[in-house]
Amino acid sequence: MARTLRVVLCALSLCANAEGFLSTSSSFAGKPSAVGPAAAAAAGSRAQIAAGNKRRQRVTAADAASVVARGASSSATVSAGGLCMSEGSAKTIVVLGGDGFCGWPTCLHLSDAGHDVIMVDNLSRRRIDLELGCESLTPIQSPQTRVKTWKEVTGREIKYVNIDVAKEYELLLKLFKEHKPDTVIHFAEQRAAPYSQKGSREKRYTVDNNTGGTHNMLVAIVESGLDIHVCHLGTMGVYGYGNSGGEIPEGYIDVTLPGNRQQKILHPAYPGSVYHTTKCLDALLFQFYAKNDGLRLTDLHQGIVWGTNTPQTVRDERLVNRFDYDSDYGTVLNRFLMQAALDIPMTVYGTGGQTRGFIHVTDTAKCLEAAVVNPPAANGPVEIFNQVAETHRVRDLAQMIADKTGTKIDFISNPRNEAAENELEVKNDKFGNLGVDFKSLDGTLLEEVRDIAQKYRGRADLELVYPTSYWNKNRVKAATDGEVNGAPEPTRLFVDVKTGAQ
Amino acid sequence: MARTLRVVLCALSLCANAEGFLSTSSSFAGKPSAVGPAAAAAAGSRAQIAAGNKRRQRVTAADAASVVARGASSSATVSAGGLCMSEGSAKTIVVLGGDGFCGWPTCLHLSDAGHDVIMVDNLSRRRIDLELGCESLTPIQSPQTRVKTWKEVTGREIKYVNIDVAKEYELLLKLFKEHKPDTVIHFAEQRAAPYSQKGSREKRYTVDNNTGGTHNMLVAIVESGLDIHVCHLGTMGVYGYGNSGGEIPEGYIDVTLPGNRQQKILHPAYPGSVYHTTKCLDALLFQFYAKNDGLRLTDLHQGIVWGTNTPQTVRDERLVNRFDYDSDYGTVLNRFLMQAALDIPMTVYGTGGQTRGFIHVTDTAKCLEAAVVNPPAANGPVEIFNQVAETHRVRDLAQMIADKTGTKIDFISNPRNEAAENELEVKNDKFGNLGVDFKSLDGTLLEEVRDIAQKYRGRADLELVYPTSYWNKNRVKAATDGEVNGAPEPTRLFVDVKTGAQ
Repeated sequence: MARTLRVVLCALSLCANAEGFLSTSSSFAGKPSAVGPAAAAAAGSRAQIAAGNKRRQRVTAADAASVVARGASSSATVSAGGLCMSEGSAKTIVVLGGDGFCGWPTCLHLSDAGHDVIMVDNLSRRRIDLELGCESLTPIQSPQTRVKTWKEVTGREIKYVNIDVAKEYELLLKLFKEHKPDTVIHFAEQRAAPYSQKGSREKRYTVDNNTGGTHNMLVAIVESGLDIHVCHLGTMGVYGYGNSGGEIPEGYIDVTLPGNRQQKILHPAYPGSVYHTTKCLDALLFQFYAKNDGLRLTDLHQGIVWGTNTPQTVRDERLVNRFDYDSDYGTVLNRFLMQAALDIPMTVYGTGGQTRGFIHVTDTAKCLEAAVVNPPAANGPVEIFNQVAETHRVRDLAQMIADKTGTKIDFISNPRNEAAENELEVKNDKFGNLGVDFKSLDGTLLEEVRDIAQKYRGRADLELVYPTSYWNKNRVKAATDGEVNGAPEPTRLFVDVKTGAQ
Repeated sequence: MARTLRVVLCALSLCANAEGFLSTSSSFAGKPSAVGPAAAAAAGSRAQIAAGNKRRQRVTAADAASVVARGASSSATVSAGGLCMSEGSAKTIVVLGGDGFCGWPTCLHLSDAGHDVIMVDNLSRRRIDLELGCESLTPIQSPQTRVKTWKEVTGREIKYVNIDVAKEYELLLKLFKEHKPDTVIHFAEQRAAPYSQKGSREKRYTVDNNTGGTHNMLVAIVESGLDIHVCHLGTMGVYGYGNSGGEIPEGYIDVTLPGNRQQKILHPAYPGSVYHTTKCLDALLFQFYAKNDGLRLTDLHQGIVWGTNTPQTVRDERLVNRFDYDSDYGTVLNRFLMQAALDIPMTVYGTGGQTRGFIHVTDTAKCLEAAVVNPPAANGPVEIFNQVAETHRVRDLAQMIADKTGTKIDFISNPRNEAAENELEVKNDKFGNLGVDFKSLDGTLLEEVRDIAQKYRGRADLELVYPTSYWNKNRVKAATDGEVNGAPEPTRLFVDVKTGAQ
């Protein structure tokens, strides 16, 4: 059962490609590269995560030993720069949800790095576009064309299989038995919080699809009898934003119970939407299957993803990644950049005081590979990483772009039921210790996204950027009343007993 | 929207009926009423919960005030003895899963107490009997005959509706809209841990049915716009047995986070089977819908239920409650009593060192009514009760019955992946404060169950009491190897940091 693998983190394809990808030449319209007060404020907010970044050491013997110790059946070694593989270290990887915004760049990244990739998708994301009357701003190709193009460009094969993970259990099991993957990456979940709150149908679909799909995958792995490592894309939202009142650790938290008993527990879940809730349900399923069946599981609590293309997707226009700008699926920074590119006001919800974690889509793929090549030991607890590069307040991001471009900001009623303002301090050492070097949000990267938005502006339906999903009936009323800043603090389970602060 | 209700806890029907029901006359064969050393040991184990019982005050002004304070839209008053209603306090109650072992006695109890009951069931429990080749030891009637008989006996009407809660969302919503219930009691979940571990199909069914059904119910309530209070039957198993190292509080726990921050959190979940896991998933869904939509939710973490009949089911043989004795659905004490009645060895798993909470089925119904008439305030956190009367080690229960009856004990390989021995100390003050007086396991009650088992012994298939569901491949191997006491400690997330004890 034990597999002998040797994985080296080095300075090859990943980083080189990343640099190549970043060589955009255009600058922002308006005030190019100006760093205004809002940008400084954003930098301040970003500093919350800096302590973690400082602790990150790229090449130390201790880190290398730590990485080796984690994988019971692999012998990974760490060196400077990035990820590449020595002979014989290629893995067979099934990517569930491989056609999506994070899935597709991850498939390409892993294939580019020499792994054998089987991409599974039922194209539900494309069907939801039809349902919402939306379309990716970038003209994405069919999965068949995508993998055909990738083969033309690189000579490497990605196999595409259409399976509904939540419904077609027998097909999923058959796939595992036939391909005997080392790893299953699980992106096959409905991933938009606003969509998950849209109405009864969408709430139910999100739970049935996400929880049912996750559980089917776990059951199929147990039934297959194979030693398959699962890497799951979770979200920072499982923690509940900022309500623990201190730095958010990576998955587990040390607590003192009554009687002065010291214990380590899974970080309490406090999700803010049906979508986020499904990721918490996943976490409990993972905990059980790790304990009961000894499955190797890695859960990646990711921040909000921005960016579009990666070093792989830019190699041919037919490989372009999707770009969502609508209020359901468009992540906040991408929406702002698209609005800036089209010179329409940026829509900030409520006060914009929400502090969130952010990560570029290229880094998502890098993190996934780092997780894939460093599986936790069997029979150990679920490995949890915070997959986030930096933190910012939403209004600071908007102001930063406004300072560069002159784009106006519209503070509109917050459709979400959430704290109007929150702090967020996140530990993200683990990926740093594995050699992942996060790209920070800066002018060059922002320009790249803005260029994409400008290039395809003719394809945009500007009405779609305004929210149509409301978290509850009070939020509908607030929108009707034109309320902007008065989002009530939702009832808090996390109460500071000493101060009474929520 | 506000309903004016006046509910009085008094000494009427409930307790009088309960006493009538308990007037069994036969005594145990073997050593009648002898209290051996094992019974004393059991009493010692039971003492773990005694502190809570002592704290229980039946009639205090403070309690009454507390009860009134809980229900924002009701004005409940507490007096001694039991539960009954003053004029105008009848509730309309939908009981999901009303045909089951706990569901049916609860329907009758609530109807008997004057509430209007709509019983919903898709008869899945009966279908699973067909699938497993099992049958209730007691000859249960169809739901149609059950409700017809109840009307003949009492003049009271229970409406029966066949809906699959996990699949027929629109019918469920229609039901809510038509009947505008004050309360929905949710029993509609696959409830056997061994069945949930039987194989891929059963694992998947348990998650799809339980999580999908719970979520459908919540979504339908939100969509209906009605102020419906949910009472859900959960399980003590959500806490993970005994691993928190101290008394288990009712749902929430006070912890100290790093930086000496005092907080109250939902008790960490650490379930031991797919079935138990679904109850933890429910808890997270409840937390979200209470926070986001202000739903009133009560979650009852119940111990292992024993007993068969209640003061209502004994009124006509056609009302008899189901009695499961098979290894999948038979709860442990009922299985032992049935084995004693048939003079076959009692099957104790592993060392029998598992300490569990127990409750008689009559008390389940009483607790449900207490919860129903005392809804939590809207927009508050989920109300959580520990619905358990006493705690015992499994081997002590077996020994107690052996001492009375001369029945032998077979210690067999534990099919479950669990700690071989655990302590369990449970807080159960809340129901005491609401006037619920738990029946303790004693000779009289045990005899009643034994009489049922003897009466219907001709219907039993004795092969069915031996386990056929194993938690994982290691447990299958242990059974094959004939291992009895060596059940390994499963990997623990709860580690005492100071002592290293798991």
